[in-house]
Amino acid sequence: MTDLAPLTGATADRSDPASPVEHMKWWGWGVPGVAFHHEDKPAFAPFVLHAVGIDLHAVQPLQQPDFAAIEVPASIADQALRDALAAAVGTEHVIDGDLDRVVHTYGKSIRDLIKVRAGDLPRVPDLVVYPKDEAAVLAVVEAVVAHDAVLIPFGGGSNIAGSLEPMPGESRAVVSLDLGLLDRVLDIDEGSGLARVQAGALGPALEAQLNARGWTIGHFPDSFTHSSLGGWIATRSSGMQSDKYGDIADITRGLRVARPGGMLDVRATPSASTGPSVREMILGSEGRLGVITEATVQVHRVPAKRVIHAYFFPNWRAGSKAMREIAAGDVHPAITRVSDGRETGFSLATAKESKGFGALAQRGLFAFLKRRGWDLDEMCLSFIGYEGSPDHVARQRRAVEKIVKRNKGVGVGTGPGVLYDQKKFDTPYLRDFLLDRGTAGDVSETSVPWTNLDRMHDGVIAAAEAAYESLGRKGWIMSHLSHSYHSGACLYFTFAFVMGDEPQAEYDVVKQAIQQAFIDLGGVPSHHHGIGVEHAAWLPDVLSEEGIGVLEGLFAATDPGRNLNPAKITAR
Amino acid sequence: MTDLAPLTGATADRSDPASPVEHMKWWGWGVPGVAFHHEDKPAFAPFVLHAVGIDLHAVQPLQQPDFAAIEVPASIADQALRDALAAAVGTEHVIDGDLDRVVHTYGKSIRDLIKVRAGDLPRVPDLVVYPKDEAAVLAVVEAVVAHDAVLIPFGGGSNIAGSLEPMPGESRAVVSLDLGLLDRVLDIDEGSGLARVQAGALGPALEAQLNARGWTIGHFPDSFTHSSLGGWIATRSSGMQSDKYGDIADITRGLRVARPGGMLDVRATPSASTGPSVREMILGSEGRLGVITEATVQVHRVPAKRVIHAYFFPNWRAGSKAMREIAAGDVHPAITRVSDGRETGFSLATAKESKGFGALAQRGLFAFLKRRGWDLDEMCLSFIGYEGSPDHVARQRRAVEKIVKRNKGVGVGTGPGVLYDQKKFDTPYLRDFLLDRGTAGDVSETSVPWTNLDRMHDGVIAAAEAAYESLGRKGWIMSHLSHSYHSGACLYFTFAFVMGDEPQAEYDVVKQAIQQAFIDLGGVPSHHHGIGVEHAAWLPDVLSEEGIGVLEGLFAATDPGRNLNPAKITAR
Repeated sequence: MTDLAPLTGATADRSDPASPVEHMKWWGWGVPGVAFHHEDKPAFAPFVLHAVGIDLHAVQPLQQPDFAAIEVPASIADQALRDALAAAVGTEHVIDGDLDRVVHTYGKSIRDLIKVRAGDLPRVPDLVVYPKDEAAVLAVVEAVVAHDAVLIPFGGGSNIAGSLEPMPGESRAVVSLDLGLLDRVLDIDEGSGLARVQAGALGPALEAQLNARGWTIGHFPDSFTHSSLGGWIATRSSGMQSDKYGDIADITRGLRVARPGGMLDVRATPSASTGPSVREMILGSEGRLGVITEATVQVHRVPAKRVIHAYFFPNWRAGSKAMREIAAGDVHPAITRVSDGRETGFSLATAKESKGFGALAQRGLFAFLKRRGWDLDEMCLSFIGYEGSPDHVARQRRAVEKIVKRNKGVGVGTGPGVLYDQKKFDTPYLRDFLLDRGTAGDVSETSVPWTNLDRMHDGVIAAAEAAYESLGRKGWIMSHLSHSYHSGACLYFTFAFVMGDEPQAEYDVVKQAIQQAFIDLGGVPSHHHGIGVEHAAWLPDVLSEEGIGVLEGLFAATDPGRNLNPAKITAR
Repeated sequence: MTDLAPLTGATADRSDPASPVEHMKWWGWGVPGVAFHHEDKPAFAPFVLHAVGIDLHAVQPLQQPDFAAIEVPASIADQALRDALAAAVGTEHVIDGDLDRVVHTYGKSIRDLIKVRAGDLPRVPDLVVYPKDEAAVLAVVEAVVAHDAVLIPFGGGSNIAGSLEPMPGESRAVVSLDLGLLDRVLDIDEGSGLARVQAGALGPALEAQLNARGWTIGHFPDSFTHSSLGGWIATRSSGMQSDKYGDIADITRGLRVARPGGMLDVRATPSASTGPSVREMILGSEGRLGVITEATVQVHRVPAKRVIHAYFFPNWRAGSKAMREIAAGDVHPAITRVSDGRETGFSLATAKESKGFGALAQRGLFAFLKRRGWDLDEMCLSFIGYEGSPDHVARQRRAVEKIVKRNKGVGVGTGPGVLYDQKKFDTPYLRDFLLDRGTAGDVSETSVPWTNLDRMHDGVIAAAEAAYESLGRKGWIMSHLSHSYHSGACLYFTFAFVMGDEPQAEYDVVKQAIQQAFIDLGGVPSHHHGIGVEHAAWLPDVLSEEGIGVLEGLFAATDPGRNLNPAKITAR
């Protein structure tokens, strides 16, 4: 029931045979051999033509990149470092093969994909190591510092903020530490709803181990299938149900971090008044304070009932106002999400003819709304998720639907929500499909107080459109509100444009326009994707120079040799 | 309707006449001229006799301490520092009077009160300054660092962790920066539920300004009447309704902090993924990162309905299990609190004959429970608070009362809750009453996962009793669960014992036994009172040596001259 299909003409795309861990495609998102397709979505091609001007029926997609054509810089790791790492993790788990090193060079932002497809590899890790337990992670950290090399932790490789890449000018050896072998749930404290989990566990492995005992972490970012617990923590991730379960910063209670001096261990307790929070320093630290090996996280009983209802609002203002009223009320759904008219159009265009929205359209709903005076281009699709006992779900739904009605919204049942639930992890594949057709698409998100929300929505769209115009290029941007808080919400933007001769520079123009609008309109550079190198330029705007100084002081004091993923977050 | 009355024989206890701010008594808690009394509480004296062996009818209370009898070390501030501070805040707001300096020497822990009453003043601030705005605060910070003096911020002076005291061996001049003149709500963003507030606002002033416009911060610690927003933030405070409104760490969104290099400004947004959280570094920093001048905090509409219901459980196990089941359920009351049998006995003993519990007893409730097989010494009093629309309150109550019933609890209506609400801020006065009668009483609290909660409860009581026995002294300890979280709860202990010849050393024996039990049984040194000097010894146990190293690195990097409240939190 997903949007995915076997990739036509897929060649052997697998990880380096020497690697003990399976990875995503070296050149794109997701499982090797699987790709987005639109053959059964008749409205998709017309939508793409309208949005970015590409005729999918006419354009000849690029061939899958050929790894043999890529020139990979040789490893500069010397024998002493190799020996020390082999002593730490075993010779078989120190890899210097080109494919594995390229897989560990970038995350999966569109900037990353453009670069790796173009063979733009100014600096790749010199070695990739796969420790099998915490002791081995600590031994790697100590070896890297002892040999004055650079260490970059790697979870699922889904990062889109540039947190994983070696700095281009780095003259020391760079070691990528892949946590893929640390993927176990170690213990569940069933009385407290706490689980001890190794940091390398990817979403599906983590959830399967919890589900087997009747528990869930309740953390489902779009990257879920290819991101790890340690990565979520290192970037302060949020998931689709964070309105109920909290962001990863709320979920994470205890932490173990391998540092040059030994293991840092924050005891897992419900709350503490123990000085500046060391727990909150590790959260979002992107490797600069050490390597997260384990976390104790809140887990919940799988709810008796879980359902996602879809609603349409006549326009963005009505939809965002409804979300604000829900947040201010007494009930707190697990998901509060509303797409703007543009993104709603996109969702309808990716629907299959006879299912979900297709079926809705067939039932004449849209004709009815039109007769009611709605402009279907402005119409906004909302998903509200309810979880808990059947009674609780029913009560929450009644309370929400009063607010929906007051804001002229219309409920359309659970069909679209079921589809959304099934397809939610497929969207990242779409970027590769577009890239194959000369179109760059990516996402950027911010958080903003309610008062500025609509202004932010409109302002970011205007900024992106100005950027497209300055490039003389046809582009598209759409948005949804993805998480609600007491004082505001997260706005999540997806943008795409047809690339010219200088894709990287063009991407930078668009991305910078969007990020600058975030700042100018009262937001932050990132709500849940982290800072890395892509967002670092805007950090002083929201933390002030003194705040950046505090961060730099922290990093300088705890990593004086700049061995731990240097230059990320603060860019200095 | 409170437990307080004019203090018999109270002398002029007011602040230094030169001080522009009213303070608490220099020798004890609360408003000068007001004290706890028990004349209308017939069960109180028998309770005290039972608990610590003091016969209130026989004991002769101490006279109120005489400030004239106290020897106060002379100020060592030199003229250059005085001039620089006068330039910053105005000559009239630089105070070197003995009374004001003593008022700013300690907080109000029992250790503080024992010391100040005994004239044990190894080191007092050399000057007290009262900046009237943020620019003046910044100028003070800069002047103190330029003259290599030491700066200790002071809010309401209610701290009980030793966060306010100058270190005994400090050879540099010590300046206490009193934020009392910065007490205004600057702005309310009504659309977002955010208020910009100056850090020196005490609870009542803050709440009055918010209430006047229909808002509340929802933060009500026991110290509310004499603690400030900045102090709450600097110690990571919690309040009675934190189950609903969040701890101060959740409530605080934006921050402004005066640092030697200038103002640090964290933009107020609902959530952010911007590296290690600078916001969370300021929270709990106890002055070591600078002086908090302003915060943007979440505020809420005063709820349509607010009610506290009282319940009795047959014993502690039943009560704590009910709280755990409430936390795991779908409804989340504003207050979840249950006292153990000992504290329930104390509550009943402080009741007036004809009101609240007295009336309950008259109605024969206790006789009924006894017939039902309850041991009234084991009986546990619980308060559950409900807030929101009347419907929401009714629904929550129904859901909670199912859990109460399942755990053999009995509802006793709203009468006791009304009394609790009225008297909740009076309890700290009791310590001075006891101290006047040779008895030291104080509080210590921790947080712990649910699985360890009962073990913690029993273990701390056993540890305190062993400490009393080792001193050969009669003592008392009682507890309540004060805040519930998904994974555990806060346990709050109140303890008292009859002092001998060495009150400070005896207090240390008892306090250390309790704190060590917190650690040994899976808790933290403090849930919401901070670390200061009193809890610092146990910090490595919950953060690990590496964690302490990270904290020390942060402080060393951001305050290389050790000018900002040095030696607090890390004790190094």
